[in-house]
Amino acid sequence: MHVKVSELVGESPDSWKGAVQAAISEASRTMKNIVAVEVVNFTANVENGRLVEYKANVKIAHTD
Amino acid sequence: MHVKVSELVGESPDSWKGAVQAAISEASRTMKNIVAVEVVNFTANVENGRLVEYKANVKIAHTD
Amino acid sequence: MHVKVSELVGESPDSWKGAVQAAISEASRTMKNIVAVEVVNFTANVENGRLVEYKANVKIAHTD
Amino acid sequence: MHVKVSELVGESPDSWKGAVQAAISEASRTMKNIVAVEVVNFTANVENGRLVEYKANVKIAHTD
Amino acid sequence: MHVKVSELVGESPDSWKGAVQAAISEASRTMKNIVAVEVVNFTANVENGRLVEYKANVKIAHTD
Amino acid sequence: MHVKVSELVGESPDSWKGAVQAAISEASRTMKNIVAVEVVNFTANVENGRLVEYKANVKIAHTD
Amino acid sequence: MHVKVSELVGESPDSWKGAVQAAISEASRTMKNIVAVEVVNFTANVENGRLVEYKANVKIAHTD
Amino acid sequence: MHVKVSELVGESPDSWKGAVQAAISEASRTMKNIVAVEVVNFTANVENGRLVEYKANVKIAHTD
Amino acid sequence: MHVKVSELVGESPDSWKGAVQAAISEASRTMKNIVAVEVVNFTANVENGRLVEYKANVKIAHTD
Amino acid sequence: MHVKVSELVGESPDSWKGAVQAAISEASRTMKNIVAVEVVNFTANVENGRLVEYKANVKIAHTD
Amino acid sequence: MHVKVSELVGESPDSWKGAVQAAISEASRTMKNIVAVEVVNFTANVENGRLVEYKANVKIAHTD
Amino acid sequence: MHVKVSELVGESPDSWKGAVQAAISEASRTMKNIVAVEVVNFTANVENGRLVEYKANVKIAHTD
Repeated sequence: MHVKVSELVGESPDSWKGAVQAAISEASRTMKNIVAVEVVNFTANVENGRLVEYKANVKIAHTD
Repeated sequence: MHVKVSELVGESPDSWKGAVQAAISEASRTMKNIVAVEVVNFTANVENGRLVEYKANVKIAHTD
Repeated sequence: MHVKVSELVGESPDSWKGAVQAAISEASRTMKNIVAVEVVNFTANVENGRLVEYKANVKIAHTD
Repeated sequence: MHVKVSELVGESPDSWKGAVQAAISEASRTMKNIVAVEVVNFTANVENGRLVEYKANVKIAHTD
Repeated sequence: MHVKVSELVGESPDSWKGAVQAAISEASRTMKNIVAVEVVNFTANVENGRLVEYKANVKIAHTD
Repeated sequence: MHVKVSELVGESPDSWKGAVQAAISEASRTMKNIVAVEVVNFTANVENGRLVEYKANVKIAHTD
Repeated sequence: MHVKVSELVGESPDSWKGAVQAAISEASRTMKNIVAVEVVNFTANVENGRLVEYKANVKIAHTD
Repeated sequence: MHVKVSELVGESPDSWKGAVQAAISEASRTMKNIVAVEVVNFTANVENGRLVEYKANVKIAHTD
Repeated sequence: MHVKVSELVGESPDSWKGAVQAAISEASRTMKNIVAVEVVNFTANVENGRLVEYKANVKIAHTD
Repeated sequence: MHVKVSELVGESPDSWKGAVQAAISEASRTMKNIVAVEVVNFTANVENGRLVEYKANVKIAHTD
Repeated sequence: MHVKVSELVGESPDSWKGAVQAAISEASRTMKNIVAVEVVNFTANVENGRLVEYKANVKIAHTD
Repeated sequence: MHVKVSELVGESPDSWKGAVQAAISEASRTMKNIVAVEVVNFTANVENGRLVEYKANVKIAHTD
């Protein structure tokens, strides 16, 4: 089994966990068999002093 | 639009998400227009084998 | 007070917060007085496009 | 909006700015909607003590 | 002589050199005696396959 | 000549050199003209105190 | 208690320990309640083959 | 299953592969169920212009 | 000779050199034959603008 | 063909590109056959809020 | 005994171990008493989907 | 003025400050006009639970 590693940015209005899941869901549309994910970094947009958009840069390991 | 980047440590008894929000809320008192935040690292204090204080080092981008 | 730093991997089916707590709970069985924890990185296993196992590499500071 | 991050190497006989633009122009042929670019590193080939080929490793964020 | 290090993001429609200068010009309005600058990273916004906004994260050393 | 950089994980029961070659062989099925490879890190699975599966994360430079 | 992290460069003709103390003394003039310091790097100026000016880049944690 | 990560240095007169295996063999004497290993860095001693002792710093994941 | 690498934090009211020595002295109580030490980072606690507790994170190489 | 890697700092009153070329020109006086250069970092001196001296730390690959 | 650290790139058609040895052999022609070597990174050239030239960036410690 | 950066390891039986000075003193025998030094890392040899040989890896900037 050979694995390819792709980098994506996921976004969620709710949480960083949601942002990672969003990246995986998006990736699932074109990548076969995603096996694992590693968080590269967490960022967020802020408006009026509140976190409003959670973002996660993730590396996704999949068997292309 | 020029942006300044400041580093803060936020704390929360509940979660790392709460710790990041706490850092932003604190920063909002002196910084105009916070636009984004990047997590530098997550740490926590532990007592009796339980996470009791979540801490987040964050870089906050704001227009001075 | 002198401190030793040990690295563990915790796992949880629910969240990364749970994975960190699991690592601490496991560590508590052999380490005296855990005082703090630092997250080294977050990874997860994925099945059918869903996060199914959250993992956290953590450094645990304890007084041996 | 979900974003994919791809790494390319651009080249230019004139400047590093040209090398980054070349990477983006090349990428535009297959990637939809490139939104941003980050420079990973700058290198160059040298002949007879003169910079003759500027190269830029870049990470390109695009909505595939 | 004691030195403080501040991080800023400068922007320019023309070049990264312009982005660094913009950060310094902006900083000059509030910082006394800027002595040196270090580039942390170069990024840019892209529209229609062209670099349209150059950005530079810089660390500025100044005697406050 | 413009170059794209892709990350893969190769595996071999024999050696890390074999793992890198496996990643390249796998990549050759879809990438045109692979020109170079850089090792990102070496890992391995262990069973009964013996190395049983060598793995190599590699960055592969290819002219798409 | 929320904490801000500021970076300074301290100098001393005697030692790196002196350079760190100098940075803290300088910072104390404008920052309330400095709680901790982390050394980022140590450098020095050299004249006639002798260390003549010790410098320390430090990150200072303070409750502003 | 919770995992502990320990760092060791293995040595071999023959190869880096041998050095990693030596570290695992040594570790097997006290650690239960070693599951994986990651190479941190490769060094070697040199005598008379020849590699004479291969060394590998490795992180060993084991279920304590 | 196989070597294990352990991480400790040493403290001293006097100096970072003392903090490293304290970590080694503490480690000597349980580790056989410490051969070398590498400083990971230097931090300190500050009170009333003075360094009051020097801390050193160190990696200790020992033949367990 | 074996390659040696040397680190230099080049300076130019005009641009970072000029600073890199200056480092190569200087190096050409003593190094045979410089083949490539990699930028390590860009810094600059500032006077009266203007960039006045561009500096580039570069690694130069040459067959000495 | 004082030690100087030089960086070289070694090449071999056979293996990375051979590439490191080649760098040391080359270095031995001008450096007195090489004592140790550290691998900085491993790369390789690829032709027709096969590894054809192994390269190793190494830091060589020698007593000038 | 163009600057070359060389890496050395200095040693002292007394302190890390002494180790850095030893590296500079040694370097002064062959390098013209050393202007600055940066500490890369501090290590030490240990015997019977005591620091017995302080070592400093340093980067020395000099006008060759």
